[in-house]
Amino acid sequence: MRKLSTISARLAAGTVTSRALVEECLARIADKSGEGERAFRTVYAEAARFAADTADRARKLNALPGPLAGIPISIKDLFDVAGETTRAGSHVLDDQPAAMADAPVVARLRAAGLAILGKTNMTEFAYSGLGMNAHFGTPRSPYDRATGRIPGGSTSGGAVSVADGMAAATIGTDTGGSCRIPAALCGITGFKPTASRVPRQGVVPLSTTMDSVGPLGASVECCALLDAVLTGGPAEAPEAFPLAGLRIGVPTGYLTEGLDDHVAKSFSAALARLSKAGARIVDLDLSELAQLPNVNRKGGFVGAEAHAWHRPLLEKYADRYDPWILGRFEVGKSQTAADYIDLLNIRADIVARVGRKTATVDCVAAPTVPIVAPTLEAMADRDQSMRTNLLLLRNAAAVNFLDRCALSIPCHEAGTAPVGLMLIGGHGADRHLLAIGRSVEDAASQTPAE
Amino acid sequence: MRKLSTISARLAAGTVTSRALVEECLARIADKSGEGERAFRTVYAEAARFAADTADRARKLNALPGPLAGIPISIKDLFDVAGETTRAGSHVLDDQPAAMADAPVVARLRAAGLAILGKTNMTEFAYSGLGMNAHFGTPRSPYDRATGRIPGGSTSGGAVSVADGMAAATIGTDTGGSCRIPAALCGITGFKPTASRVPRQGVVPLSTTMDSVGPLGASVECCALLDAVLTGGPAEAPEAFPLAGLRIGVPTGYLTEGLDDHVAKSFSAALARLSKAGARIVDLDLSELAQLPNVNRKGGFVGAEAHAWHRPLLEKYADRYDPWILGRFEVGKSQTAADYIDLLNIRADIVARVGRKTATVDCVAAPTVPIVAPTLEAMADRDQSMRTNLLLLRNAAAVNFLDRCALSIPCHEAGTAPVGLMLIGGHGADRHLLAIGRSVEDAASQTPAE
Repeated sequence: MRKLSTISARLAAGTVTSRALVEECLARIADKSGEGERAFRTVYAEAARFAADTADRARKLNALPGPLAGIPISIKDLFDVAGETTRAGSHVLDDQPAAMADAPVVARLRAAGLAILGKTNMTEFAYSGLGMNAHFGTPRSPYDRATGRIPGGSTSGGAVSVADGMAAATIGTDTGGSCRIPAALCGITGFKPTASRVPRQGVVPLSTTMDSVGPLGASVECCALLDAVLTGGPAEAPEAFPLAGLRIGVPTGYLTEGLDDHVAKSFSAALARLSKAGARIVDLDLSELAQLPNVNRKGGFVGAEAHAWHRPLLEKYADRYDPWILGRFEVGKSQTAADYIDLLNIRADIVARVGRKTATVDCVAAPTVPIVAPTLEAMADRDQSMRTNLLLLRNAAAVNFLDRCALSIPCHEAGTAPVGLMLIGGHGADRHLLAIGRSVEDAASQTPAE
Repeated sequence: MRKLSTISARLAAGTVTSRALVEECLARIADKSGEGERAFRTVYAEAARFAADTADRARKLNALPGPLAGIPISIKDLFDVAGETTRAGSHVLDDQPAAMADAPVVARLRAAGLAILGKTNMTEFAYSGLGMNAHFGTPRSPYDRATGRIPGGSTSGGAVSVADGMAAATIGTDTGGSCRIPAALCGITGFKPTASRVPRQGVVPLSTTMDSVGPLGASVECCALLDAVLTGGPAEAPEAFPLAGLRIGVPTGYLTEGLDDHVAKSFSAALARLSKAGARIVDLDLSELAQLPNVNRKGGFVGAEAHAWHRPLLEKYADRYDPWILGRFEVGKSQTAADYIDLLNIRADIVARVGRKTATVDCVAAPTVPIVAPTLEAMADRDQSMRTNLLLLRNAAAVNFLDRCALSIPCHEAGTAPVGLMLIGGHGADRHLLAIGRSVEDAASQTPAE
């Protein structure tokens, strides 16, 4: 994995061309011994070559749209691309009309000159954190590939495409962890912005309240550059925010409960490195979050909103859904309008109460996922996979509920199972969190990208 | 009825004192031959005298908080006043704790120096447009008082308090017409602002999506002055916006259907006067609005949100509600979360489509209420009153659904049954609408206030 800034510098220096980068990615995607077949659903070989060639020529004319022009990137299978039907990792939408226009975020990537390689595989309709897909196969996590472990989801193919060098970065969505969980389990960096910062038009929704569009890449800086493009600005990253004196709150419960040994050890070691580098690690009581399982017992926002959107499709095409995914729609059905309104009020209350507590720290840290990636074999059992899914989503989804932003930064020792350190920022304080994340990454990561 | 600017000028000139104004109002409220007993639920005689005396003294010291200081005003029975339980025209809340603080709008009125005379009677929990109250009596419309006609609601007591000179103006709420319907049926002016412009904390909610806090008074200028205070600014009114060339759209259906003869004639005559004064009256196809009865068949926002708020109270105190009001909660109960989410999407779509059409006009005009105030006797029949309620709400509630602002301006010939001319403005374009309303009032009103 290379950082976007490194790639950009090499392009500027003329040591590589965009076309060569794109060809390298296309070759890896096509390699039958790799995960390309399960990581990608559509490959835009000719359009990516065209974008690369255009960038290479523009570079000579000093007419580049920005520093990321010509860099190969992948996008999740739920973003509209003009002229084709958006399928969201499913067969349910196969008969739907083609998109009239690119989703605004896709249009922004194109305008910035990025070479869009293709659409990546995902959990059907993004409705699970495991990253398995019964229709199109499950790309394996880069760790322990011989055994075969889940990549995390729902941006499964996107994360694997970056980890395996099939793309320099990828764009996913995150409703309850779908950028951060696969980033954590694949050993890369993922960012979930404050939901409202990035336009969600032209994106197949899971939960209109919770959906966020965010990048996954080799580093925090990569995420910052792409977040800048996704929010409509020039591709810039904030300077690193110094660690000295930075107050990092670590929740005393809920987000730090039930960790497996490897995650617990990796997380503690990362905190120790941050502390040594000058950060102050302080305990934080966020006991409000322990209410979330009960608050969401009737399906929460995702259950209600996914049911509302899928209702007409469920009537017509129930047989096209993976039965495992279909089962997830059951709980939201019985939610009443009054339940949903109660949920809005409870959310506002919890957001306010947690906000008063986190006002005393610069950011909050917790493991992104409490356990290492389970094996594909273990996930064949339905009950086991349902329970594991909830555990994988637990920490990440709390951030969507709080309407905040968060990063997942690799913090495991090289060669061991990937572990994500999740840094949680305030609502709308995304660029500040990214600045902090750059310093945290420097101190905490043991697997830095070039 | 006198305009607030006239009263303010007389106070400034020393031809009257605030104390005298307050005493005059208190005497009218106390007059057993009037409607005071049914129009007010609480009278703050000593606090109003104190505010008046304070204003009279401040005036001599050139230390007034603003031009409305010392003017007597009434407020609806659903605004929090520190130290007392807010009852919302009901017995259901009798055991609830006292409010800790004034509602922000009440605090703003006090800060502007207005003398708050008391809390006015209303439809129980604001949940009907008729203005009847089974617990505390129904104040009669000022028109045809011998027969006895409904005042319109839910701000029934507030409208009658202004019409009968028991207050110079009043503050109500409007969820589906509760400021405008009683204004129309009592021959005064009412204003429903864009909901989000005026804080709704400390106000017993009916529908968190639709509730708006607005003034009723003798003129558009009165409403503009009070709207300025309610939104946190100094008490100012915009200049009148000239009628010459102004494009007023008149819907060809729905809002102009089913008018009784007197309303139809009064409305046409008002449009003719506006046309003569230079405005251009243009037909407008707003056929989207004809969907509203079907869109709201499961109770709409009000049904769902009222049910959510009342659910714990309905469990404990069902016997305390007027059975007629209790019946209104039935329809919202069965609404599912998915129905509610569909409603949010349908609303956004209708708002956008109507917005594209109204972009061609400066404002939209329609009768506030399609019929003249029915008699109290006719409303004793349950089915008849239920049907009449829906008809009374029809036009006004469309504006809440569209998240816009609207005025109701009297347009009937003096001595005949009151008819309101409703002017609808754009979302957030409240001050522009008030400026237009001043000119429309000058041309269209046949019962101008001094």
